[in-house]
Amino acid sequence: MTTLKNDTFLRALLKQPVDYTPIWMMRQAGRYLPEYRKVREEAGSFMGVCTNPELACEVTLQPLRRFNFDAAILFSDILTIPDAMGLGLHFTEGEGPKFERPLRTSADIEKLAIIDPGTDLRYVIDAVRLIRQNLAGSVPLIGFSGSPWTLATYMVEGGSSKNFAKVKALMNNEPQLMHTLLDKLARSVAAYLNAQIAAGAQAVMLFDTWGGVLSSDDYREFSLRYAKQVRDLLILENEGRRVPNILFTKGGGLWLEEMANTGYDALGLDWQTDIHSARTRVGDKVALQGNLDPMALYANQDVIAEKVKTILDKFGHGSGHVFNLGHGILPDINPEYVKTMVDSVHDYSRSYHC
Amino acid sequence: MTTLKNDTFLRALLKQPVDYTPIWMMRQAGRYLPEYRKVREEAGSFMGVCTNPELACEVTLQPLRRFNFDAAILFSDILTIPDAMGLGLHFTEGEGPKFERPLRTSADIEKLAIIDPGTDLRYVIDAVRLIRQNLAGSVPLIGFSGSPWTLATYMVEGGSSKNFAKVKALMNNEPQLMHTLLDKLARSVAAYLNAQIAAGAQAVMLFDTWGGVLSSDDYREFSLRYAKQVRDLLILENEGRRVPNILFTKGGGLWLEEMANTGYDALGLDWQTDIHSARTRVGDKVALQGNLDPMALYANQDVIAEKVKTILDKFGHGSGHVFNLGHGILPDINPEYVKTMVDSVHDYSRSYHC
Repeated sequence: MTTLKNDTFLRALLKQPVDYTPIWMMRQAGRYLPEYRKVREEAGSFMGVCTNPELACEVTLQPLRRFNFDAAILFSDILTIPDAMGLGLHFTEGEGPKFERPLRTSADIEKLAIIDPGTDLRYVIDAVRLIRQNLAGSVPLIGFSGSPWTLATYMVEGGSSKNFAKVKALMNNEPQLMHTLLDKLARSVAAYLNAQIAAGAQAVMLFDTWGGVLSSDDYREFSLRYAKQVRDLLILENEGRRVPNILFTKGGGLWLEEMANTGYDALGLDWQTDIHSARTRVGDKVALQGNLDPMALYANQDVIAEKVKTILDKFGHGSGHVFNLGHGILPDINPEYVKTMVDSVHDYSRSYHC
Repeated sequence: MTTLKNDTFLRALLKQPVDYTPIWMMRQAGRYLPEYRKVREEAGSFMGVCTNPELACEVTLQPLRRFNFDAAILFSDILTIPDAMGLGLHFTEGEGPKFERPLRTSADIEKLAIIDPGTDLRYVIDAVRLIRQNLAGSVPLIGFSGSPWTLATYMVEGGSSKNFAKVKALMNNEPQLMHTLLDKLARSVAAYLNAQIAAGAQAVMLFDTWGGVLSSDDYREFSLRYAKQVRDLLILENEGRRVPNILFTKGGGLWLEEMANTGYDALGLDWQTDIHSARTRVGDKVALQGNLDPMALYANQDVIAEKVKTILDKFGHGSGHVFNLGHGILPDINPEYVKTMVDSVHDYSRSYHC
């Protein structure tokens, strides 16, 4: 078992005592960093960075050289699984992800196979190993996957969607077929996260980016049920240490109580959800991660520091909080303002952990 | 006082006894109807329909010829006020609304004048009068406006926005200037709605389309506060009858209790919010309007009927429910499926009102 120099993040997720509130940031390895843009340009494409373990490792480490983040997160995409299933992922400039062969018929769904991550997504597993070596025990590495529901939306729509018309038509008209798809995805996601853990991921997070477009009933039946199936299939140990896990549904603030009952150690919060109310609602069941409005980083640095304090005040005393944005950082944010956020979290939070 | 043949909608908003649950539909006068598309094409533009009282009247009445809706809603746009303030509204095909002169400086905000709807938005007031004449007491007419916060987002961003970076930067860095803008908008919105009421609107609705992009604290300070200011300024009587009023924040499901304390008679619900939970949370304070997922209209007709029943079952017995979609109908929905929804609501709801 490697000794971790900084295990604050893992401890906070398990609500063990910490000296300060840890912080990392969704999309912390990304376009707001000029050194990332350079690698991305040299690689020629976003997927060119994802599929090359050396480059994925390099961009994963970049933000840690600038900021005192308490965790690294694997640089990858949420759509690697559908790509491995044969749908043909590609990115068009300014248009987001597209699939060459979206799911159009019941036969398309019936013939999908559960992925074998060790072979089908070898490049991700290799990247996890390489990042762990290069982190050299400095901070823990987070592995991740898109949630079954979120993956299904892209696979049925063929890419990003505004209204989710196709996937909701499938869900409403052929619920059993939708369940077949979601079950295959849940088993694939679990295999993928377990492979990341086996390769060295010390925490895992499920990104349910599009659960919030569903009605409460549909969320329970088509998103949360499969997030729970994934959780039940996870093998949560790495080098003798418990692997904490996080469920994040963007737009899921209405459903925190139900999310807290699925067995995840922590819930990610979007910025609309008040973290004080959230803590009251979920009680001791889960830790909470979040939840500064990503757009707050367009504010002046003194305003950012105040907003950080407000969130720390709202959470209050005790462990069980990982600071984060409520969604990914935007590409045009000034990195200096990220530093303001990170340092404010570390400085101000100490008073809540003594 | 004109006798209304069908006042079920008004009575439900005031929680007075009704024989069945009334229904209307956001964007019921719109592109899903071929007869609307014909008028729109002949007028040459969307604003060409809005600014011509005869055409606005015609498209307002079209859905009532097809379906047994219990209310008509004025055909107009939420951005008429900023246009009247001189920002220069225009629509680009496929890109949504744009302003030629968005707010860029504090001077731009300081020089904005409260609108005088009788002169600045005469075309809307004339349309309200004409529609009332043509409705001839069949069903009530709903007037509406965008909320101060929602109007401000378009005015500062210059059009639709994905991330609301500019308006949130203004809000965070210069809150007092933002309050100046929102106060001017609240007074303009109230004057506008009061003029619609004076011209014959029998109910009014405030569309806070973008309140849901704010954190809880920011929602309270920059959206809800001004929705309340509007409410406090409304003169809620038309022809001796109380004018019920509705507040709708898309994405506002987390804040229903606070919304219910602002004095509005009813709250609009988006489809993510469970209407049973909502009723439990707001108690007797307000009526509820909603909340079928607009994408449910892509389902088969028997599925639509089942989904309608589920929502009626969730609301349960008694008055205080107006059926609606959780957001506007989409342009490619088959009108026959709208009929299924309307008739299902009317047929099935009678058992809950005896």
